[in-house]
Amino acid sequence: MKYSSFEQIAQVCRGKEGLKRVAVAGAADQHVLQAVIEAHKEGIAEPVLVGDPERIAEELSKLGCPADSFETVPAYSNQECGQVAVELVKEERADFLMKGMIETRDIMKPLVDKENGLNTGRTMSMFTYNYVPQMTRLLALADGGMIPYPTLEQKKDIVMNCVESLHKLGIERPTVAILCGVEKVNPKMPETTDAAALVEMNRKGEIEGCEIYGPISFDIFMDKEIARLKGYDCPCAGDFDCCIVPSMAAGNLMHKAMIICGGTKMAGVIVGAKVPVVLSSRGASAEEKFVSMALASLLS
Amino acid sequence: MKYSSFEQIAQVCRGKEGLKRVAVAGAADQHVLQAVIEAHKEGIAEPVLVGDPERIAEELSKLGCPADSFETVPAYSNQECGQVAVELVKEERADFLMKGMIETRDIMKPLVDKENGLNTGRTMSMFTYNYVPQMTRLLALADGGMIPYPTLEQKKDIVMNCVESLHKLGIERPTVAILCGVEKVNPKMPETTDAAALVEMNRKGEIEGCEIYGPISFDIFMDKEIARLKGYDCPCAGDFDCCIVPSMAAGNLMHKAMIICGGTKMAGVIVGAKVPVVLSSRGASAEEKFVSMALASLLS
Repeated sequence: MKYSSFEQIAQVCRGKEGLKRVAVAGAADQHVLQAVIEAHKEGIAEPVLVGDPERIAEELSKLGCPADSFETVPAYSNQECGQVAVELVKEERADFLMKGMIETRDIMKPLVDKENGLNTGRTMSMFTYNYVPQMTRLLALADGGMIPYPTLEQKKDIVMNCVESLHKLGIERPTVAILCGVEKVNPKMPETTDAAALVEMNRKGEIEGCEIYGPISFDIFMDKEIARLKGYDCPCAGDFDCCIVPSMAAGNLMHKAMIICGGTKMAGVIVGAKVPVVLSSRGASAEEKFVSMALASLLS
Repeated sequence: MKYSSFEQIAQVCRGKEGLKRVAVAGAADQHVLQAVIEAHKEGIAEPVLVGDPERIAEELSKLGCPADSFETVPAYSNQECGQVAVELVKEERADFLMKGMIETRDIMKPLVDKENGLNTGRTMSMFTYNYVPQMTRLLALADGGMIPYPTLEQKKDIVMNCVESLHKLGIERPTVAILCGVEKVNPKMPETTDAAALVEMNRKGEIEGCEIYGPISFDIFMDKEIARLKGYDCPCAGDFDCCIVPSMAAGNLMHKAMIICGGTKMAGVIVGAKVPVVLSSRGASAEEKFVSMALASLLS
């Protein structure tokens, strides 16, 4: 399996039997409701709206939707919205989560809380899936948004989160690049020794179901010809399924450079909990929100 | 003064009175000689070749040049080439340095050695000057290649190296962005507190002759409209002269993403010593080598 466009994700999602239900925490907002209405219309997910029922009805009517279009579960404060949405998943009344107009911490707190049963003990991380015009397949990128300075143990979790997500998307044995500023292991640069350690964990079977390469620099990662010139023995240079960044700052700067200077388009969810969480910001494009929901639906 | 193309750098360089002399450490190589012959022909610099005179003459003849085209100073081992080139600068027989076919450490060691008088006590850093198709002016970027994890003190030196370089290029009061993954100061993310500290040093006059902004995320840095939407009060968003990256890995990944995905073109020199050092790799394009030499000539 290989995805080369966002449209393909939506298609695969539509082809699945039974609509997944998304608990939308803090749904009383035009932008949020527009996104879930679109996702429902397109056969991506069935929303369960969590928030103030009166305000939700009001916003729905502005969008020309009857108040009873979707199941609505009352919750009033932001904290309550997060808690109730998480409980809906716990009670199997929803399959995945979406952050609406509440703060990220309002949904992360009940998600992490072991009482609610959605914390798997694994580090949670962002999983972005990207259309990169310079590549032939969609590229998973992690973690550009959750953990500022991941330890080796956390990087292992990040890799496993990505690999399991790619398996769920139908990619059997994803290739994973551990990106660094250089392609040689240097004891003075911990990100390069971490990369070597992750490759070793993969070789020993501690991280299974994927092929890990690293440390690898961005030019080798992107270009088979540069890899050949630099003598980097790696059959998937220019054609990786996934890349892991050394830190949040590095990942964020690199990812935004790809987006702003290179036309990359992203979709993203939080993975590592029992169900994925769609976390698109208000600034996200309609396409990003839609594809993120299709992605979460496939991962749940 | 504002540069918008590499051609402009070459023009300004040609317009200066008197050719600068470049000591080429390890000159007995086709690629290196091609670059210096081109720079000489274009009125950018007068080469002083350091290396084995017989081998240099041989390589010159292959390129159709008489052996006595340029001054040649004999040196045999790589270490000797570095040392002799640095001594030429010390003796004022050369104005700047270029690394030919020797290792970077072979030129850095005599450069750092206080005996040779070129070490200013300031941290040395890479100064790359970039044509970024998405921007209206050339962008200085540092440090993507010398210091893996710069301390605040080293970042201050990196900023001062850039600012002084931009002054030499005729940019009177450059605007400097301290790039981070986020635009808010977060005590848990040292790169953001460093950014705030650099802004404060600028306000107090410890770093003069520039305007420093930060922490600033890549999207705000690149786009005035995003800055406005995110409420980031900064008149030069989308129009900075210079950006400072939080670490070598972050800078390298971001810079290569701009180059490979976004069509950015770079030229680069090492600054912070008494004279600049051209350090283009064998893989560098002819344009990169040429512009790097013009840049070094203007900075020396």
